[in-house]
Amino acid sequence: MKLNFFEQSVYHTRRSTLAHAIQSGLILIPSNEEAGINYKDNTYPFRQDSSFLYYCGIDRPGLNLLIDSQTGESFLMGDEASIEDIVWTGPVPSLQQLADHAAIDRVISTAQGLDWIRGLQAHKVPIHYLPIYRGDHAFRLADLLGLSPEKIAANYSRLLAAEVVKMREIKSAQEISELNKAINLSGIMHHTMMTTTRTGMTEAHVAALVRAECIKADVDIPYGMILTINGQTLHNHGHHNSLRSGQLLLGDFGAESPMHYAGDITRTIPVDKTFTSLQRDIYTLVLTTLEQSIQAIKPGVPYLQVHLNACLNITKGLIEMGYLKGDAEEMVQEGVHALFMPHGLGHPLGLDVHDMEGIGEQYTGYDENTLRSTQFGLSALRLGKSLQNGMVITVEPGIYFIPELISLWKSQHKFEDFIDYNAIERAIPFGGIRLENNILVAAEGPRVLGDPIPQSISDVEELRLAAYSL
Amino acid sequence: MKLNFFEQSVYHTRRSTLAHAIQSGLILIPSNEEAGINYKDNTYPFRQDSSFLYYCGIDRPGLNLLIDSQTGESFLMGDEASIEDIVWTGPVPSLQQLADHAAIDRVISTAQGLDWIRGLQAHKVPIHYLPIYRGDHAFRLADLLGLSPEKIAANYSRLLAAEVVKMREIKSAQEISELNKAINLSGIMHHTMMTTTRTGMTEAHVAALVRAECIKADVDIPYGMILTINGQTLHNHGHHNSLRSGQLLLGDFGAESPMHYAGDITRTIPVDKTFTSLQRDIYTLVLTTLEQSIQAIKPGVPYLQVHLNACLNITKGLIEMGYLKGDAEEMVQEGVHALFMPHGLGHPLGLDVHDMEGIGEQYTGYDENTLRSTQFGLSALRLGKSLQNGMVITVEPGIYFIPELISLWKSQHKFEDFIDYNAIERAIPFGGIRLENNILVAAEGPRVLGDPIPQSISDVEELRLAAYSL
Repeated sequence: MKLNFFEQSVYHTRRSTLAHAIQSGLILIPSNEEAGINYKDNTYPFRQDSSFLYYCGIDRPGLNLLIDSQTGESFLMGDEASIEDIVWTGPVPSLQQLADHAAIDRVISTAQGLDWIRGLQAHKVPIHYLPIYRGDHAFRLADLLGLSPEKIAANYSRLLAAEVVKMREIKSAQEISELNKAINLSGIMHHTMMTTTRTGMTEAHVAALVRAECIKADVDIPYGMILTINGQTLHNHGHHNSLRSGQLLLGDFGAESPMHYAGDITRTIPVDKTFTSLQRDIYTLVLTTLEQSIQAIKPGVPYLQVHLNACLNITKGLIEMGYLKGDAEEMVQEGVHALFMPHGLGHPLGLDVHDMEGIGEQYTGYDENTLRSTQFGLSALRLGKSLQNGMVITVEPGIYFIPELISLWKSQHKFEDFIDYNAIERAIPFGGIRLENNILVAAEGPRVLGDPIPQSISDVEELRLAAYSL
Repeated sequence: MKLNFFEQSVYHTRRSTLAHAIQSGLILIPSNEEAGINYKDNTYPFRQDSSFLYYCGIDRPGLNLLIDSQTGESFLMGDEASIEDIVWTGPVPSLQQLADHAAIDRVISTAQGLDWIRGLQAHKVPIHYLPIYRGDHAFRLADLLGLSPEKIAANYSRLLAAEVVKMREIKSAQEISELNKAINLSGIMHHTMMTTTRTGMTEAHVAALVRAECIKADVDIPYGMILTINGQTLHNHGHHNSLRSGQLLLGDFGAESPMHYAGDITRTIPVDKTFTSLQRDIYTLVLTTLEQSIQAIKPGVPYLQVHLNACLNITKGLIEMGYLKGDAEEMVQEGVHALFMPHGLGHPLGLDVHDMEGIGEQYTGYDENTLRSTQFGLSALRLGKSLQNGMVITVEPGIYFIPELISLWKSQHKFEDFIDYNAIERAIPFGGIRLENNILVAAEGPRVLGDPIPQSISDVEELRLAAYSL
């Protein structure tokens, strides 16, 4: 087991702040458990719950963090490893040692914790826990709280969800440093993609070289790698194709930092040494949109506005190229551009790649001033509310030619005053281009996190040339 | 989506056989669902449920296979991909196309299936499903059957479990061919470990090179890779250490075949070019035990007996080396050898690496003639019952020096008439040696599956020399 903690005071302060905000009752934050793949004991790589990491940093399953909101006292509830555990999974620090790293006041056994919880319940003391995103958790909390799994899933604490989001969405300097580590390793992965991809290779072969950077660095990936010639499929996790001349390769992947902060970077490269003329035009439009969107980021600006401006920019560009026609502002209002960019411009980033999504996007992305749209495309925007100093977000505009969507809309005569379906169909197969950086929202101006990762056409083509010169 | 199916008749015959065995009611086999890592939509690599694969081969989440045990008719229950699904995860074959590959009689929507199930329930028709190994499944079946998740978890069909195991435990020629593919790629991974490992590298670096073979081949790994200098920790998934001269590196890993059959191979190599004298002695004892155990495998022999013979062999060897003293048979009966080999000799292998473990080891490994022991070490034996023609099993003897276990037993004065604790402590740190092959049980004699993977001391040292000559 690797031990990676911030200073003790970091966790102590976070828990005190939370206790103070919640004011009454017990706060219960369960760790994640091992998750079975095809049977219980064959487990996926363990990933700790991000809120558990945030409030105590302990990277082990089978524990509960309890915080008494009245006294601010904290408790690590769990049982020491048995000799069988040690034989099978190796020696581990004691719970007291782990608690010390996180400045937790006391270690209590599962049985002690259960007694305490039952006692509090008898006195109708509220017990606050976050929304459940794994079915096994509902069963575990059901045992702990003596309620049915369905009740557990329904009765999470809205107050706790809102307060945890309020804390986690603003990143400290130490967290920014972790994010930089994650993004720098993500950059190494992208560099590998840019310098090794050649015609005739499979997507899987490039994915192996890219992923190896992460395994070698002994960290996990924060989400399934996208590395595909079918970039028009937004979350394409297959790597079954061979790379042919004329195609684009879209890579959306990153690394975790040792403390599990996520990097989330996208680049799109030509399989050849250079982009074609059409690829170049679309790439330039996406890159310009990326750069303009980043420049627009500052505290107080609703991210919805940045998103809509990006859509407007893309729409104007596509009018110039002859794929769309008419009034750009009207088209964005109607959602015409979603044929080409059916996703949101970005999302919060932190311990989760879609940060805090498990707690609920009504807290992380929207608020009473900004309600989520139901319009196709805009409904996929995960972050609409006003930006604040210290938030970290992704900016990831894209333009895609999605054959199935194009033919559906065409068959429905959808927006046919605005859309030149014939022109669009001539461009198929094109795939898609997306470019993504990770941005710190700051009063002094937006900061692109991590060391620069090649993104200009000339920088990318220079590396592509290198790939073919080896 | 890759399509990998056996011939249609394979699935048709399997389902008919099962229907005939169950005789009454409806058989319900749910597919697996996507499993969230740190929130619902950030998912682990999808792994289909193995019984679902066995009875229809369809590698997609969100479906149910229904088999009417009276008529033998089969139904694929699910809903077609929406345009949003296609935009996000790509175009997929229709359910009818998938059903055709598996010779399934009819496709029905989720709503239709639900109506049908409710109708059957109203007539008290039994609905058979297998044990649940993921919490999310309990919630899904709860919705489907209108029962509470706890009831769902408790009320699985013992009959179905027993009959599915009876079928899956005997492998057909096509299944053996898939297992050979998995084991051959596993062999390539081990070859990579043997030819790249050098002092000064990290475990993580070697793991990256090994894992890349699998990613490049576009298949998954059947279980978390073990690649460690601390081979004495049986399931050690950490790769945090640097490799130093004098150490052993234990690699227990494999690949899946394209149809998700598992390879499960273990080799142990010296970090140097050659084994030390002590490593050589222990390695020889483990290798001899492996070979003798394999020779003892034939239909009708209880695997418990093969396990106990292996333990006896190891005990005799350790007596010769001066670590144990006394009567070997008595020691095995008492479980003294478990200090050195606290695990079972092997387990069934197939679509799952511990095949059918999700259904329950009372069905897969034991029967009314062979009950599971509670003795430390022997209790970890997953397969005790008599072997049958067509079973595939692992044989994986090991010898470990586990500091925590040695010091616990020593402090308890456990078996001190038999164990020379001082001699043992002098050998620490040693780590552990395990060797594992995958065997087809056959009347004409045991068959080691896959192409040979170097295991003799001379073959291993030859490859180790190559690693340092590059």
